[in-house]
Parts: sequence; structure tokens; C-alpha cells
Amino acid sequence: MGLRIGIDLGGTNVRVALVNEKGSIVEFLQASTESEKGYQQVIEKMSLMIEKVSEGAEIDGIGIGAPGPLDIKKGVILSPPNLPGWDNIPLVEILSGKFGTPVFLNNDANVAALAEANVGSGVGYESVFYITVSTGIGGGFVINNKLFNGAHGYAGEVANMIIDPNGYQHSVLNKGSFEGLASGTSIGRRAEQDFGITGGAKQVFTLAAEGNEQARKIIDETVTYLAMGIANIAHTVNPELFVMGGGVMESIEFILLPLQEKVKKFLFPELASSIKIVPASLTGKAGVIGAAMLV
Amino acid sequence: MGLRIGIDLGGTNVRVALVNEKGSIVEFLQASTESEKGYQQVIEKMSLMIEKVSEGAEIDGIGIGAPGPLDIKKGVILSPPNLPGWDNIPLVEILSGKFGTPVFLNNDANVAALAEANVGSGVGYESVFYITVSTGIGGGFVINNKLFNGAHGYAGEVANMIIDPNGYQHSVLNKGSFEGLASGTSIGRRAEQDFGITGGAKQVFTLAAEGNEQARKIIDETVTYLAMGIANIAHTVNPELFVMGGGVMESIEFILLPLQEKVKKFLFPELASSIKIVPASLTGKAGVIGAAMLV
Repeated sequence: MGLRIGIDLGGTNVRVALVNEKGSIVEFLQASTESEKGYQQVIEKMSLMIEKVSEGAEIDGIGIGAPGPLDIKKGVILSPPNLPGWDNIPLVEILSGKFGTPVFLNNDANVAALAEANVGSGVGYESVFYITVSTGIGGGFVINNKLFNGAHGYAGEVANMIIDPNGYQHSVLNKGSFEGLASGTSIGRRAEQDFGITGGAKQVFTLAAEGNEQARKIIDETVTYLAMGIANIAHTVNPELFVMGGGVMESIEFILLPLQEKVKKFLFPELASSIKIVPASLTGKAGVIGAAMLV
Repeated sequence: MGLRIGIDLGGTNVRVALVNEKGSIVEFLQASTESEKGYQQVIEKMSLMIEKVSEGAEIDGIGIGAPGPLDIKKGVILSPPNLPGWDNIPLVEILSGKFGTPVFLNNDANVAALAEANVGSGVGYESVFYITVSTGIGGGFVINNKLFNGAHGYAGEVANMIIDPNGYQHSVLNKGSFEGLASGTSIGRRAEQDFGITGGAKQVFTLAAEGNEQARKIIDETVTYLAMGIANIAHTVNPELFVMGGGVMESIEFILLPLQEKVKKFLFPELASSIKIVPASLTGKAGVIGAAMLV
């Protein structure tokens, strides 16, 4: 009773889990996505994994977290940069036909937000805004334990928020967008451009730990942009809690702690004294758990 | 049955209405605020107006919309620039003591948002983001006909959202804040600074109507900033409808119509094709109606 399948469909890995009604993982499987072999092959692999984790168990439904853009209402994967070859694939229809059970689709950041809010760092909070900062930036907004999708599924798409109209022109996002200025990719780009530091964000953090001033300057700028983005969200919906996930946020010393301080500079005094920004806690498993919660 | 008092406490006027459960005004009174005579005098005047509009009727409670900053939960008016001399005034406690009925306080933009969403331009929409652009900028977010205040009452405080970190330094808001760049005051300031046009926003609109290129340039910049602010809100919560109020928005030809077009430039394609931005419809009465809806 109350068992669901949660699927985390990523560009690199596909993860499938059997999750109980409390959001705990009962069975878990992971495989390489290999989307270059065609989407049919990926769906075939996912289907086998579903059968394997659910083995004989009665399930209430299947939830899938996938990279955007998606059509959430129709359950269609449109044409995600991270899933080459997927082009208007009606994944919900395909899987519900195959398994005769309700199937739900939402984007990866929304699904992680749902998991963090319900069984991760956000437990007990009324409103949680989740932001993941890695290669790109994603977000999701959870109110009273439920995902707030917005009218057309674009709530939480803060990657495209404008932070500096004179800033970097991202290839598919706004000039000076949050993702263009504050993502891991942006850290690597600015480090190379300003100081000839190659090796991406990882190298920047390594150098910063060694005391390199140029690397620290890049990180400091990043923290400022992150603080502005969070302040903008706080002045729009004032969530009780911000939960920060993704590789960049794993740097507690260089990113999270300075961010918690710097954001106060951009907030009304009462907001500054009440804002809460904490790290995500379900790293790696948030996807399947949150996906199962879509059911 | 179902009658409430709605109070719109502004810097210039105080309006008091008896409002029925459908949000229709039954009785209405207006007077000058004259806050320079002291807050006690204003509260005395409000009390007399309450007695007059409710005359013998049984009321369910009193709602008040007032300029911020406020402490909504405690019902205290902190120290609004628009109400000089009001400093930590526990208005809710004072009026509930006087009238023996529940009293609710919220900020003027939130209250107007509630009215527009429920009986104004937002009727029938699930999520409505209201923005008022006049001397300053205010906002309010209504989900399923209820005000979304956020954890500490700062939802909708988009005036302080950062639009351009290198932009104008407002006296009490962020550098490059939405209000600092897109309000009526900002129109007047930029017109004087860039082109020596005095006479404020009103004169800028008059000149623009006469074909003045400088005035049109200022207005065009304003529309760009408004479009960026709306795009940022859309990418954060994707409301089904934006309702625009305030004096600046009354210029349909020079502000609203170009804004509806320009905002699309800053949105994901599907958002661009689905965004709805409409003018407010309860001008002047939104305050008392929305205040009554707090009850």
C-alpha cells in the first residue's frame, strides 16, 4: 500500500526507485542513460528497471523528474539540451500505456524541491524555495508541502531571471540572467576570461582553497550574484526557507556561509534578520524521492 | 449578515466603507488624513467614520489597508514615510478595543491585490500578481483568492527587487531597485537629469503625447524596466494574470500596450505566448474593498 515508482531521468544517469508513502526508498537502481543510443532504448531500460524495483509490489503510480523544457500538463518531453534526440516524446502516455498506472512528469529541479521540502532540509516549513546551482541553475517552490507550478509550469524557472541587464549574454537565456552569472559554468567562464584560469569551477574552488586571490574574486562575484537572485525571490514570495542544492553549493566555506551574510545587504531589515538559507540534504536521492511524490 | 468595514488609510485620504460579503460597497465615506495633526486625531476621525457607515448594522470585523512598513501579525503600523508621526502604533489593538470586533491590517498594495483578484480584473484567475506603479511601486500576490503574504509578510514587496545593480541608488531601497528605476518618481527624476524636463512624470506624459522624443525615450526606458520586473516575477511564480494599477499604468498607449509587447522579449517562448497583463479596474475603491476582504 502506498508504494510508488520515482524516476530521475538525467543526461548522465537514470535512477529508478520504489518509494513508500513516507518518502523512504525501498528499492533503488541506477544505470547510464546513454541517450545517444536513442530515446526508445532509454525508455526500454527504464521500463526494465521499473519492473525490477517493483517486482510483484502493487504500485499507486509512477512519477518522473526530467530536464526541461517539458510540457507538464501533457506529459511530453520537448527537446532538452541534456537529452539529445528527445524531441516531443510523450513519455507519460508511453509509460502509462505500458504499466496501466497513472504517470506524472515534472522538471528535475521541481521534483528535488518537493523531496527537500517534504523529507529533506525543509521538513516543518510552510514555504520552501529550492535552488540548485551546478552546471546550470534550477529552482522549485513548495507551499504547504505541494509544488507550486504556476499557471504554465514556469514557477521556479529562476535561471532566466534578469540580475544585470548589462551582464553576460547566455545562448538561450536572458542577457544578464541568473544562470548566466551565477552557475558553475559561469564561474569557469569568468575565471578563464578575467584571469586565464582554465579547468572550470572545480579548478577555481581548488585555487581558492590554496589562497589564490583571483579565484577568490571570481567566487566573491558569484556569491554577490547568488545573493541578488535570492533577494529578488525573497522580495517576491518571501519563502520561510531557502534550500540550496547542486555542486556549487557544496562549497560551504566559500559559497554558502558568505552567501548567508551577503544576502542580508540586499534585504529589508526585518527580512534580513529572518531569512533562512540552508544546504540540501538528500543529495543524489532527491530526484527519485521527489518524483515518487508527484503521484 | 456578512457586513464588514474596509478602511483605506492613505497619506492623503482616509476612506471608510461598509462592504457586503460579495465585495460590494454599501456605504462609503472619505476625508483628508491630515496626519500632521497627530495619529490620535486620525484614529478619532476613522472611528467616527466607522460608526457613521456602519450605523446600527452588525459587522463581522474591520480590515485596514495602510502604507508600509507594517507588522501584519501584531497589527502595528511601524513608521511609514507616508504617515509622518506614526511610529509603532498598535492600530489593530486600538480599534479592536474600541469596537469589540476582530480587526486585520495589511499593506495597501496587498489589499488592492486582494480586491482586484476577487472582484476586479482578476475574477476567475487562479493566481494573480498585482503591481501598482505610481509615486512608488507596490505589489501583492493572490493564490486561489487568498493573499499570499509569505513567511514574514514580505511577499509582493517587489519594489526592492534588483533590476540593475549599476542603476540608481534609491534612498531606502536597493541600488538599481525596481522602484528606483520604474516608478513615477523615477520617470520624473530621469527626465530632469537626462533632458532637463521638469514637472515630473505628468509632464513627461504630456510631452510624449505631443511627440517629444526625449519624453518618449524616458518612457521607453521605463517600459523596459517594467518588462524586466514582470519577467522576473513570471520566472519565479508564473502567475496566471498580472494586474497593473497606479497612476503610471493609466497611460495605456505609452505604458501598458508597449509593456505587453516588450515583456515577451524577456520570457521563455511558451511564457511569452501565454502571459496576460491587464489594467486594474477598481481604481480608488480597491483599497476599502480589499481591506474588508481581510476579515
